[in-house]
Amino acid sequence: MKLATIRLADGRTEAARVDGGHAVLLGHADVGALLRDGGDALDRAAAAEGTAVPLADADLAPVVPAPGKILCVGLNYRAHILEMGRELPAFPTLFAKYPEALVGPRDGIRLPPETDRLDWEGELAVVVGRAVRRAGPQEARAAVAGYAVLNDVTARDWQYRGPQWLQGKTFEATTPFGPVLVTPDEWEQGPDLVTTVDGEEVQRASTADLVFGPAEFVAYASTILTLRPGDVIATGTPGGVGHARKPARYLSDGQSLTTTVEGLGTLANPVRAERR
Amino acid sequence: MKLATIRLADGRTEAARVDGGHAVLLGHADVGALLRDGGDALDRAAAAEGTAVPLADADLAPVVPAPGKILCVGLNYRAHILEMGRELPAFPTLFAKYPEALVGPRDGIRLPPETDRLDWEGELAVVVGRAVRRAGPQEARAAVAGYAVLNDVTARDWQYRGPQWLQGKTFEATTPFGPVLVTPDEWEQGPDLVTTVDGEEVQRASTADLVFGPAEFVAYASTILTLRPGDVIATGTPGGVGHARKPARYLSDGQSLTTTVEGLGTLANPVRAERR
Repeated sequence: MKLATIRLADGRTEAARVDGGHAVLLGHADVGALLRDGGDALDRAAAAEGTAVPLADADLAPVVPAPGKILCVGLNYRAHILEMGRELPAFPTLFAKYPEALVGPRDGIRLPPETDRLDWEGELAVVVGRAVRRAGPQEARAAVAGYAVLNDVTARDWQYRGPQWLQGKTFEATTPFGPVLVTPDEWEQGPDLVTTVDGEEVQRASTADLVFGPAEFVAYASTILTLRPGDVIATGTPGGVGHARKPARYLSDGQSLTTTVEGLGTLANPVRAERR
Repeated sequence: MKLATIRLADGRTEAARVDGGHAVLLGHADVGALLRDGGDALDRAAAAEGTAVPLADADLAPVVPAPGKILCVGLNYRAHILEMGRELPAFPTLFAKYPEALVGPRDGIRLPPETDRLDWEGELAVVVGRAVRRAGPQEARAAVAGYAVLNDVTARDWQYRGPQWLQGKTFEATTPFGPVLVTPDEWEQGPDLVTTVDGEEVQRASTADLVFGPAEFVAYASTILTLRPGDVIATGTPGGVGHARKPARYLSDGQSLTTTVEGLGTLANPVRAERR
């Protein structure tokens, strides 16, 4: 099953099941609310026969617009770590992003006037479907509600103002997330992640190359605290980011950023300079 | 005015105004909900004549139980930075904590079996009262709803597993926060922050010694994203943490941790080993 969150004309949002070119409205305010409603709600969503709207016309919100937590993993693609001459990490690197950073899969990415080093980080996102604490491998796997695409767009100058990355990771309206949530029966880790800037491919890697895969990371993070339905995990980016290029490259006003995970869909976001 | 969030017998919580030894119930689910309701709600809270319960009997929740965001500042006490031989930072260091970490001002602090390096970090907390983005100095000052006490209890082994501190900062039920929110007309920066372990003073510093003060930090963080009512800022800890002592000291089962900011009140929390 594929699920989306659609913006309605009156300013509200509604969760929808995506069938081919149509979206069937489900009544819940968004995919996060649907997941928090529990397992039966997903069964009802699979069987629902509500109003169908053409997907092409739909205004898509971030697939989970207000996650309780967004956990991000750093340094998680094996080939990229090895090509940088580093050793594979014993533990995942974790940092946060606040929900204010999210935008929809076709929305503009706001380029704030306070940075001139906005960079791309295409990522596979995992959405949690059940509350889990200290999950074992099987429980962790069962806690994955599905997969989506996210671009952890980062202001590099702010990221490196001090030892902690958070302030470069969470500028308002910079992080596209969607277009849909695909449940685990329809997608598994392996297909490529591809990022393009103005049509030029800048990142490509197999999602099978993660050091810490989705279930392994759910188990790890749930040692620390309870993960809850609608929580989002951004699993890290492979090589090819702008900041590591020689010369370095950054996003500029008017450019187009796309992020695709094969089988999950594409985020296509214009970069738009924001006035102060 | 002093505000608290009280746990009721039926499992719900309710915001209260604290007058001396009594708490007057206000109807809102908690202090966060009261703040999100806006300025008039605070005026009504100041005038309310609801049910009064004795404060000593009250079961206090974290003063804002579920903040939208908890932003933490690192390396922010001037004297401590200078005594460590470092230069004063040009920018604040920011990291996050998730709401699952919070406990009430008299609750047990859970010592997880996965760490043996749980450490104290007494801090002044600032609670946001208005939505602000790119706030100037005056707007930032007006956005401070009030002050409280927080102990940013940290699992040092997990904090230093990688370059990012988050995973040591957000273990479930480790971070006491309260006991009350004191509005800015009744408290201003300056009085001492004091931390004790089993009655022994381990940290003492003037809250006037912050490199980035409350309003300055609100202005800085609001450059990055919108701050909203109920968001919490933990302003950093002074010298005296256990990890920096020779020999190092950590919290153990059965110890008592207190954190006081003069004029704001005291957190008094037993440390309780948690079974896996």
